[in-house]
Amino acid sequence: MAKHTGEKQSKNRKVDTLRVALLGCGSVGSQVARILLQDADDLAARTGARLELVGIAVRNLKAKRDAELPQELFTTDAETLVTKADIVIELLGGIEPARTLILRAIEHGACVVTGNKALLAADGPTLYEQADKAGVQLSYEAAVAGAIPILRPIRDSLSGDRITRVLGIVNGTTNYILDAMDSTGAQFADALAEAQRLGYAEADPTADVEGHDAAAKAAILASLSFHTRFALENVHCEGISNVTAADIAAAKDAGMVIKLLAIAELITSDDGAVGVSARVHPTLLPREHPLAAVRGAFNAVFIEAESAGELMFYGQGAGGTPTASAVLGDVVSAARRLVLGGPGRTETTAGHVAALPIGKVQTSYYIGIDVADQPGVLAKIAALFSNHGVSIETMRQTIHRDPDSAERLGSAELQIVTHRAREESLAATVAAVKDLEVVKSVKSVLRVEGV
Amino acid sequence: MAKHTGEKQSKNRKVDTLRVALLGCGSVGSQVARILLQDADDLAARTGARLELVGIAVRNLKAKRDAELPQELFTTDAETLVTKADIVIELLGGIEPARTLILRAIEHGACVVTGNKALLAADGPTLYEQADKAGVQLSYEAAVAGAIPILRPIRDSLSGDRITRVLGIVNGTTNYILDAMDSTGAQFADALAEAQRLGYAEADPTADVEGHDAAAKAAILASLSFHTRFALENVHCEGISNVTAADIAAAKDAGMVIKLLAIAELITSDDGAVGVSARVHPTLLPREHPLAAVRGAFNAVFIEAESAGELMFYGQGAGGTPTASAVLGDVVSAARRLVLGGPGRTETTAGHVAALPIGKVQTSYYIGIDVADQPGVLAKIAALFSNHGVSIETMRQTIHRDPDSAERLGSAELQIVTHRAREESLAATVAAVKDLEVVKSVKSVLRVEGV
Repeated sequence: MAKHTGEKQSKNRKVDTLRVALLGCGSVGSQVARILLQDADDLAARTGARLELVGIAVRNLKAKRDAELPQELFTTDAETLVTKADIVIELLGGIEPARTLILRAIEHGACVVTGNKALLAADGPTLYEQADKAGVQLSYEAAVAGAIPILRPIRDSLSGDRITRVLGIVNGTTNYILDAMDSTGAQFADALAEAQRLGYAEADPTADVEGHDAAAKAAILASLSFHTRFALENVHCEGISNVTAADIAAAKDAGMVIKLLAIAELITSDDGAVGVSARVHPTLLPREHPLAAVRGAFNAVFIEAESAGELMFYGQGAGGTPTASAVLGDVVSAARRLVLGGPGRTETTAGHVAALPIGKVQTSYYIGIDVADQPGVLAKIAALFSNHGVSIETMRQTIHRDPDSAERLGSAELQIVTHRAREESLAATVAAVKDLEVVKSVKSVLRVEGV
Repeated sequence: MAKHTGEKQSKNRKVDTLRVALLGCGSVGSQVARILLQDADDLAARTGARLELVGIAVRNLKAKRDAELPQELFTTDAETLVTKADIVIELLGGIEPARTLILRAIEHGACVVTGNKALLAADGPTLYEQADKAGVQLSYEAAVAGAIPILRPIRDSLSGDRITRVLGIVNGTTNYILDAMDSTGAQFADALAEAQRLGYAEADPTADVEGHDAAAKAAILASLSFHTRFALENVHCEGISNVTAADIAAAKDAGMVIKLLAIAELITSDDGAVGVSARVHPTLLPREHPLAAVRGAFNAVFIEAESAGELMFYGQGAGGTPTASAVLGDVVSAARRLVLGGPGRTETTAGHVAALPIGKVQTSYYIGIDVADQPGVLAKIAALFSNHGVSIETMRQTIHRDPDSAERLGSAELQIVTHRAREESLAATVAAVKDLEVVKSVKSVLRVEGV
C-alpha cells in the first residue's frame, strides 16, 4: 500500500495498491465510482497497482444513490478523506469547498484529478503552483470538451510545435440550440425551450447560453496552448441569446453556419509584440469547415499549429459516462506515474505573453443592415467602411418588395462581408453606419472564421 | 550536461542539456533538425533543458541538404552517434540498419523517438521489451497518422476506458485517390496517375495502394488500443487497386462513400471468447459518417469506446513539417521525463487477447451482381443468402434496357446490402451465388461500416 501522508512516494518501494478518494457523486462521480469498482482488475493490469476506492464524500448521506455502490464508502467528512488518499478525484464543481479540499489533498501529497473548469479558470494558478511545489500531478482532462482527449495532446503531443490558433465548440447546449435553429428555422427561445424539454439545457440556462461555461474553457485552452496563465476576466464573452432566426437564415444564404466558438489566438501586433486573445462569441463558419459539421450536442476542437497544420478533435463534450472516461484516463496516468515513482509535473508556462483585449483581434465580419431604398446608399456606406480602414469583400443588396405586386417598399437590406479587420475599427465603422440617416438599423454583426 | 553512457540518468543531478542525435535527414528529418536549431530557446523553456543536436547520421555526406543545417553535424557513423546521445531520433525508415541502431541506442540508455511504422509492425515487441528493460522511453507518435496526436490519447487519455473499435483513414495517398474517383468519376488508374503527377503517390505506389502501409498502422493501432502485441502477419489486407468507378458510383447511389479503412476491433465470439481483428480493406461508409467528410490526403482516426462513446481525430497524415511536429512532441515529452528524472515506460500490454482471422469478423456487406433478367432470379439468390445464415437488409434490381428503345436486354443488376454477418458465411454465400446459372458475375463485394 502506498503512503498517504504528506511525504512523497518513496522511489524504491514497490507500490501495489493506490488509495483513491472521490469527492462528489453526481452523474460523473457515480460513473467513475462504478467503473473503479467494476473494472478493478483491468485498471490494475493497466496501472501496475490496484486502485482502491477508499471513500466517496457527499453532502447528504441520505440522497438516493446507485444501489451498486457500497453504502460504507460514503462519508460527509471530505476534509479527512482527502488526507487518506494517494489520488483525489474532485467532482464537486464550484469554487468552494472544492478549492480548499484540493489544496489540502496536495498538501498531503496526493495527486489530484478534477473536472472543475470554473475553479481552474478562476484560481488555476494557485492550484498549479501548489501542485508543482508538492511534486504531485494535477490533471483536468475532463474540464474541457468532456470525453475528448484534448488537453493532453495540446500539452504533450504538440509540445514541440507552435500552436497559433484554437477554435472550439466546447459547449454542447449552445451547439444543440444553434444546430436546431439551423435545421428547423426556429427562433432562439423556441429552440432553447425544446433543448430544456429534452434535457440538453438546464432550467437556468444562463451559464451555457451566455457563454460563461465556454469562457472558462477558453481560458484553460489559451493557458495550455500558449504556455501561459490566462485569467478568466481577460476572456471576451458573448453568448447566443441575441442570435435570431434571421441571422441563421442569412448565414445559410451565404453558405455559412453560426457556431458559438471558444477562440484562443496568438496575435502579433504591428509593432511585433505578441499577445493572446481568448474570446467566446457566435461565429460564422463556411459550411465546408470541419467544425461546421459538428452537430447536436457534440463538441470539437480545431487547432492550427505551425508545423502540424490543421488538426481537429471530435467527440462527446458532456454526460456522466463520457466525462468519466476522461477522469479515469487522468487517474490511470497519475497512478502509472506513482507506480513508476517519478515526480509529477503540470504543464509548462514558459511563454509570457500578454492577454489581449477584444479590440486588438482581427477577423472578418458579416454585417446585416436595413437601409432606405435610395440611390447612393451603397456608395455612402462603402465610403464609411473605407474611411475606417475596413475593406469590404462582398456586398449584396436585396430590395424589399411587396410579394404580390413586386412594388418597391422603400427599404432594402445590405449584407456585407469584410476582409480581416481589427475589432476596434469595425466597431467604429458600425457606430458611424448607425448614425447615417439612410440606415434604419444594423440588424446583425457577426464575426467570421475559417474563410 | 547529461551523461551519455549506458548508465541511467541519475535522479538527483540537475540536467541542463540533453544531447539529441538524429538518424536520417529526409523530408521529415530535415524539418526536425531545422526546428531543433531554430526554436532552441522555446524548446528549452518548455523542456527545462537545452536540446543540443549533436549529430545527423546520413548515408551519403555529399547529398544535397538544406543549407541552413551546419555541415559539421553530418556524419556517416551512426553506430557511434547513437552511443553519444540522451535522445535518439530514428527517421531512416525500413528494418535495417534502423533496428540495430535503435537497440544500440537503448542499450546505451538513450530514449528513442521513431516514426518507423514498418519496423514497429515487424519487430515492435523486441524493441518495447528492450526499452522497458533499460528503463528508457520508446515513442512513435509519428508512425501513425503523421501530425495527428493519436497514439498518446489512446495510450494515456483513454487508459481508463475500454476501446471497442478503431476505424482509421491512415493513408493519405489512397484517400486522395478514392476522393478524386468520388468527385470526378475517374477510374482508379487515371486517379492514381494524377496523384503521382501531383506528388501524392510515389512512382512505385504498391505499399500505399495495396494497403501495406495502412496494415502496419493497423497493427500498431490494434496493439495500443487493446493493450496487446498485434503482429503484422495477422492483419488482413486488401488494397484499392480493384475498386472501380462503377463501385464508387454504386456507393454514391446508395448514399455512401468508399474509404480505405484500417480497422482494429474487439470481437466477442459466440462462446464468450474475446479476440481482436485488425484489417485493411475498402469500406463503404454512409456519407453522414464523420470519416466520410475526410477529403484529399487528410487522415482521421475514429474511435469507439465504452464510456467515451465516439471520438474522432483529424489532421494531416504525412508531409515533412506535419510529421516533424509529432516527432518533436515525443522528443519534448522524453526530455521532460529525463529532466524530471523519472523512468520511462512504454504502453501497457496487460490484455492477452487473441488475434482473429478475417473469417471471424462480422460486418455488413454490399454485393453487386449481374444476373439474367428472368423470373425467379431474385427469389433464388435470396434463398441462397438465407441458407447461409446471411440476412438481407435491402435488395434492389435494376433491369438493363436499351437506352433508346427501352427494350429489355436480358440482363439485370442486383444490389444487395446485408445485415451484419460473419465474413466466412458471406464468403460461402458469394461462392454459391457465383455457381448459380442465372448469375453472370459478382461485380463487387464491399464491406460496410458506420451504419
